[in-house]
Amino acid sequence: MNIQEIIAKKRDKLELTKDEIEYFVKGYTEGKITDYQASALVMAIYINGMNDREITDLTLAMAYSGDVLDLSSLGEVVDKHSTGGVGDKITLILMPVIASLGIPVAKMSGRGLGFTGGTIDKLESIPGYHTSISVDEFKENVKKINISLMGQTLNLAPADKKLYALRDTIACTESIPLIASSIMSKKIAAGANKIVIDVTCGSGAFMKTMEDAKNLATVMTSIGKLAGKETVCIITPMNEPVGYAVGNTLEVIEAVDILKNKYMPKDIKNIIEELGANMLVLANKVQNIEEGKNLIIENIRNGKAYEKFKELVQNQGGDISYIENTDKLEKAKYIVPIIAEKDGTISEINAYEVGRLSCYLGAGRQTKEDEINPRVGFIFNKKVGDIVKSGETIGYIHSDDEQKANEILKYNVVKI
Amino acid sequence: MNIQEIIAKKRDKLELTKDEIEYFVKGYTEGKITDYQASALVMAIYINGMNDREITDLTLAMAYSGDVLDLSSLGEVVDKHSTGGVGDKITLILMPVIASLGIPVAKMSGRGLGFTGGTIDKLESIPGYHTSISVDEFKENVKKINISLMGQTLNLAPADKKLYALRDTIACTESIPLIASSIMSKKIAAGANKIVIDVTCGSGAFMKTMEDAKNLATVMTSIGKLAGKETVCIITPMNEPVGYAVGNTLEVIEAVDILKNKYMPKDIKNIIEELGANMLVLANKVQNIEEGKNLIIENIRNGKAYEKFKELVQNQGGDISYIENTDKLEKAKYIVPIIAEKDGTISEINAYEVGRLSCYLGAGRQTKEDEINPRVGFIFNKKVGDIVKSGETIGYIHSDDEQKANEILKYNVVKI
Repeated sequence: MNIQEIIAKKRDKLELTKDEIEYFVKGYTEGKITDYQASALVMAIYINGMNDREITDLTLAMAYSGDVLDLSSLGEVVDKHSTGGVGDKITLILMPVIASLGIPVAKMSGRGLGFTGGTIDKLESIPGYHTSISVDEFKENVKKINISLMGQTLNLAPADKKLYALRDTIACTESIPLIASSIMSKKIAAGANKIVIDVTCGSGAFMKTMEDAKNLATVMTSIGKLAGKETVCIITPMNEPVGYAVGNTLEVIEAVDILKNKYMPKDIKNIIEELGANMLVLANKVQNIEEGKNLIIENIRNGKAYEKFKELVQNQGGDISYIENTDKLEKAKYIVPIIAEKDGTISEINAYEVGRLSCYLGAGRQTKEDEINPRVGFIFNKKVGDIVKSGETIGYIHSDDEQKANEILKYNVVKI
Repeated sequence: MNIQEIIAKKRDKLELTKDEIEYFVKGYTEGKITDYQASALVMAIYINGMNDREITDLTLAMAYSGDVLDLSSLGEVVDKHSTGGVGDKITLILMPVIASLGIPVAKMSGRGLGFTGGTIDKLESIPGYHTSISVDEFKENVKKINISLMGQTLNLAPADKKLYALRDTIACTESIPLIASSIMSKKIAAGANKIVIDVTCGSGAFMKTMEDAKNLATVMTSIGKLAGKETVCIITPMNEPVGYAVGNTLEVIEAVDILKNKYMPKDIKNIIEELGANMLVLANKVQNIEEGKNLIIENIRNGKAYEKFKELVQNQGGDISYIENTDKLEKAKYIVPIIAEKDGTISEINAYEVGRLSCYLGAGRQTKEDEINPRVGFIFNKKVGDIVKSGETIGYIHSDDEQKANEILKYNVVKI
């Protein structure tokens, strides 16, 4: 077997065998196959595609290219993943709910890159919270309090990391087989056996159209089936930001307020009900979705989820006084109101633009090496469809730089 | 403009602009565009193709990526090129004929690689012949005696060199647009304004089928037209070796014998008539092909081409006593006869096999760094279609290693 023959087969639209795919992934991870050979194969895959069997073999080969977490000692762990969005604080809300219902939650999360945020960055805006704990500690935490959320400290799916970075430089990011295998390989390496995936769709997501979102969902479900990992994909809209807050500290505050029963944005309710109920079904906790949805909302209403969240924070070194009183969390220097210039109905809050501008304020990273500013971002008072009056405050820009805030005001991210 | 956008366009089967192609070729030559980015683009070109305008822009960008020879001071120079073959000593015979007819011949030739031979290797088997002369000397030679044949000492089409080496590692050699632009870029950089190309077709050529050969010819003719370089392509068969001799010294001897009018193999007569007559038409020496063919054969018959060849050799430092008496040229240690095992008709002398085995004997290179042995190769006494009797000598293996010769005997390269 040699890499030229493998490239030539995919170039000619032929099906690759499991051995050929494993040969490529192993050789590339070890550096025996060069970047330019991988590049040629990736482009051939992008143009000529792969069938579900090939995609599954690629996924498994990448998943097993580095460390693989074994969570079998923890019981029926169900993982949750989102394909990324703006203002997406679902993990912070939903995982404590799930843990409070007796299902073990052992989740490794990522950092944000580009216009989408990452759960680990959000957690790190809670003073004291340790995201870089050992795997033993992680498992112990789950055994002790039923929940742990940590960063990716292990060498998970290094083949995927290499291929992902390569794809970015050769205009091959937007390939459904490659996106699907990238997501699933990381999940499988992170120990997931049952996975609920939130496939976001819209301006603030990687999948811009419903067609692409459906394709991605179909492919990931197939991979799950062929790889023996029960997988459910839920497609959720990502045209306006999720909830009202965007930015790390601001999103933690919103998540805590929701867990405290202060309010519940309709979009967040829908997402946690859908994802949560499916997780409960996968965990054999409930028989049907309706029953699951009720349990999810019930454990927010009765405060059990909030208590579980505080337990999580405290157990990982965080100072819960900041959770009990979120006013203690440090705010940005400038909080500049966004004022409605006319009467009317909110027609658009472009999630992509909000994500991009949050990044510009310092809430996100342009490159992996960038430091982030936890304080900055947006708070909106309105959602799309809400009625506003001229002169009403429809949101705030939180910025440490007054000039940037004023620049952003001109963008009119909220359209009336 | 950036390379990702260019890759994405070709990935999506869109047409690249002249500016985009030049941006790629310049950036790649300068090392600003990486091998893996070039690799992705090359694969996209392989799969999605290029139209004639794009191929021409690629050709010209590669041609002007390094030194470009200016032969305008020499008059109506017509260049000749072969896509490669086994036993192909056409340049050695035809160019002196052309020069003897008053057309300036200024040709830079390559070395052999793999199973095909190179003119420069053949010329270097003549004691004293200098192939590495300066460009000034080269032009002076042409002004003085109307002919010079030299090696490629300039930095001709470096972009093509880089891309050619890359293609080899990523299974993208056999792409008609890429082959056509590679050949044409080198010819244009070597100063050619009018070009006759021998597109070889068959087992001993890069183009194995008539369909591929015709495609390549059509594309190169289009490039010539769009680039303002008159180009004529002639497709010639390359299933059995050209003439009777294969190997550097052995081919020089055959070329000299033909120029001396000792004999004229039918296939060689056809090729030099076709190519030569087209060169004379392009040089405006004759009005039609028939007239050209007659002139070509006439100047071999009357000895003028032979005299011109001797002049060429002497002028570039070669010892013409070896030409006047080719018995003086050093021979291989073992000359092992190939004996017919039965009566019959020769059905095949596989050019590819003969080329490969000559290489094995030392006549060619596996890698660019290999040294070659000028003495070794094959002499056949028969051509395909000839009748033989059992026990008759149908050829000889010339080898410096008796064991290798005996090994090769078992291959039965001549099929009855």
